[in-house]
Amino acid sequence: MLTTDHGEVQTPVFMPVGTAATVKALDGEDIRTTKAEIVLANTYHLFLRPGEKTVSEMGGVQKFMNWNGPMLTDSGGFQVFSLGLGAKGETLSKIDEDGVTFKSHLDGQVHRFTPEKSMDIQRDLGADIIMAFDECTPDKIEKKYVREALDRTHRWAERCLKRWEENGKKSAQGADQALFGIIQGSTDRDMREEAAKFISSMPFGGVALGGETIGYNMEATQEVIGWVKHLLPKDKPIYTMGLGRDPQNIVDIIKCGIDMFDCVAPTRLARNGALYHGELLGENFESEFSNGRLNISNAQFIKDKSLIMEGCDCFTCQSGYTRGYLNHLYKSKELTYYRLASIHNVRFMVRLVEQMRGKMRKNSRNQELGNSR
Amino acid sequence: MLTTDHGEVQTPVFMPVGTAATVKALDGEDIRTTKAEIVLANTYHLFLRPGEKTVSEMGGVQKFMNWNGPMLTDSGGFQVFSLGLGAKGETLSKIDEDGVTFKSHLDGQVHRFTPEKSMDIQRDLGADIIMAFDECTPDKIEKKYVREALDRTHRWAERCLKRWEENGKKSAQGADQALFGIIQGSTDRDMREEAAKFISSMPFGGVALGGETIGYNMEATQEVIGWVKHLLPKDKPIYTMGLGRDPQNIVDIIKCGIDMFDCVAPTRLARNGALYHGELLGENFESEFSNGRLNISNAQFIKDKSLIMEGCDCFTCQSGYTRGYLNHLYKSKELTYYRLASIHNVRFMVRLVEQMRGKMRKNSRNQELGNSR
Repeated sequence: MLTTDHGEVQTPVFMPVGTAATVKALDGEDIRTTKAEIVLANTYHLFLRPGEKTVSEMGGVQKFMNWNGPMLTDSGGFQVFSLGLGAKGETLSKIDEDGVTFKSHLDGQVHRFTPEKSMDIQRDLGADIIMAFDECTPDKIEKKYVREALDRTHRWAERCLKRWEENGKKSAQGADQALFGIIQGSTDRDMREEAAKFISSMPFGGVALGGETIGYNMEATQEVIGWVKHLLPKDKPIYTMGLGRDPQNIVDIIKCGIDMFDCVAPTRLARNGALYHGELLGENFESEFSNGRLNISNAQFIKDKSLIMEGCDCFTCQSGYTRGYLNHLYKSKELTYYRLASIHNVRFMVRLVEQMRGKMRKNSRNQELGNSR
Repeated sequence: MLTTDHGEVQTPVFMPVGTAATVKALDGEDIRTTKAEIVLANTYHLFLRPGEKTVSEMGGVQKFMNWNGPMLTDSGGFQVFSLGLGAKGETLSKIDEDGVTFKSHLDGQVHRFTPEKSMDIQRDLGADIIMAFDECTPDKIEKKYVREALDRTHRWAERCLKRWEENGKKSAQGADQALFGIIQGSTDRDMREEAAKFISSMPFGGVALGGETIGYNMEATQEVIGWVKHLLPKDKPIYTMGLGRDPQNIVDIIKCGIDMFDCVAPTRLARNGALYHGELLGENFESEFSNGRLNISNAQFIKDKSLIMEGCDCFTCQSGYTRGYLNHLYKSKELTYYRLASIHNVRFMVRLVEQMRGKMRKNSRNQELGNSR
């Protein structure tokens, strides 16, 4: 359980992504109907538009978007590197010891992030959990560079902690802010272990696993978790960044003991016509559709009067919207489609986590009973 | 008051447009929150996609879109002519005595509408009110052609009535369907009067005023109404097609004694950043913004913490969404914007009609009291 000034969060928890202070196509009330407990917003995007000072004056990101529940912001580091890539693969961002200079993907204007700047922006945005500014290294890169980037990330972690303390560990709006550290180290076991020890030893409120692998390659993600698990703090939440595309991912990551994860996939897949379908049987996710999602554009759904998924408690299914109607809206590119589909996919993932949480509670109760015999 | 198998409609009434079986960006529940009493859908669009047989099998347009309230469909005539215009202004539709051959704007496929076909499609779609298939003539066109088109429209009106009777005056789903006739005649007073007499004399459930002028040019619309008003039936609803862009239009048209009108403008303007603002003072609409709408993209709204309109009872304003947040969403082209803005604009127009209705009731009560003295 995480406690924030904007409410409590039960763990494990899936965080839908609200990049630009909106979970795409959903309003605050819609997010509440999905029963999501915490939303992630992106520092890089909000810094560029509408600007952190605007968000701050509007009362912080929670109030701004009329969600008013717990929120987390990333540090902007990942976007500075990934969105800074030019058309020919050249990077538009320049890293030095002090920080990163990068071009806006919106208008090409040059900006600069430092660890301190990231802390100050996140203070203005006002999320309940903020992330240390790190360098997210790719998988296929020479070891020498991973070493340099990791050392720099660790120096930046110390600078982030310092600035966060100077900022009174509070948002510009006066709410408590927890700062999480991030373990990098690419796919190098030694460096991942070193990073896990280093980050875990610092006074962070939580510890995250970052990097290209995490979330995008579940096998490698689980391998990295296996390397570092025994080195992570037992009393702090552990967060794997960018994870939660396929329902099975959620089952797997919770089995690994992870507390928090986020992913743009439920809303992005929804917009592309992929709607989650399936259920948790025992400890596995099972579905009649590959990857646990049906493709609503398929001709088989044109006159299909059934709901996206029988028994689903999302607003879209509960309201009676049929596959046939959603097929029509999707093919007509009607705005109504994007919202109805996104609500289903987000609620689906949130519910899957609720079900896993229920199973864990039951298991731990059974264990306790076993112990007391 | 109109009574349909899907509920009652108080007149005068503004009908939001749900072209492709969705009021753009809104779901059925959203439409209910705007307190709209009847929705218009387009025969031409639904015929092309998903096809009237599909809509019929899905339970009719009301059930299909989960609105389940009263609905009206147009005849497809207007779209066959207006969307049939090619890039160089040449028409892609060919009119003969029996009907119209036209190319789909979606895929260029050739289709044919006749009065009977329009009746059959509308029977399958299943709206509560259906419209006669007419030829919508432009304003600037030689009198000889207006004459030919009007005579043809009248012959088609008779064929529509015949087919509607053959169809048992019922939808394919078994609900009662009322058929309305349409008065054309372009901007020619004699022909408008002739059309008004002819259409009013026929056993239609209601009488509509159509043509390029109606709705697009309020002064000319009021002039045409002035010509024909005394010729229209007293006991049937009168409908001006495509009218309701500016709030003042609604005030003016209700003062002219019109019962029904529809317009795509509230949702289209919303998507373009124009949000209605102002109020009814006495018998006039007054606003601090020109045409009664503010432009949400204006820089003055970036940090504006006020609602779109203080005191507005729409979902968007009641939920507390600020101009600052909507400015951000609009500039970021976020999907959430389109829905929140459309809800406000539709509710605004529906409320304005409610207010006018209230004033009329009060006036007629005062008159009655006056008479009984």
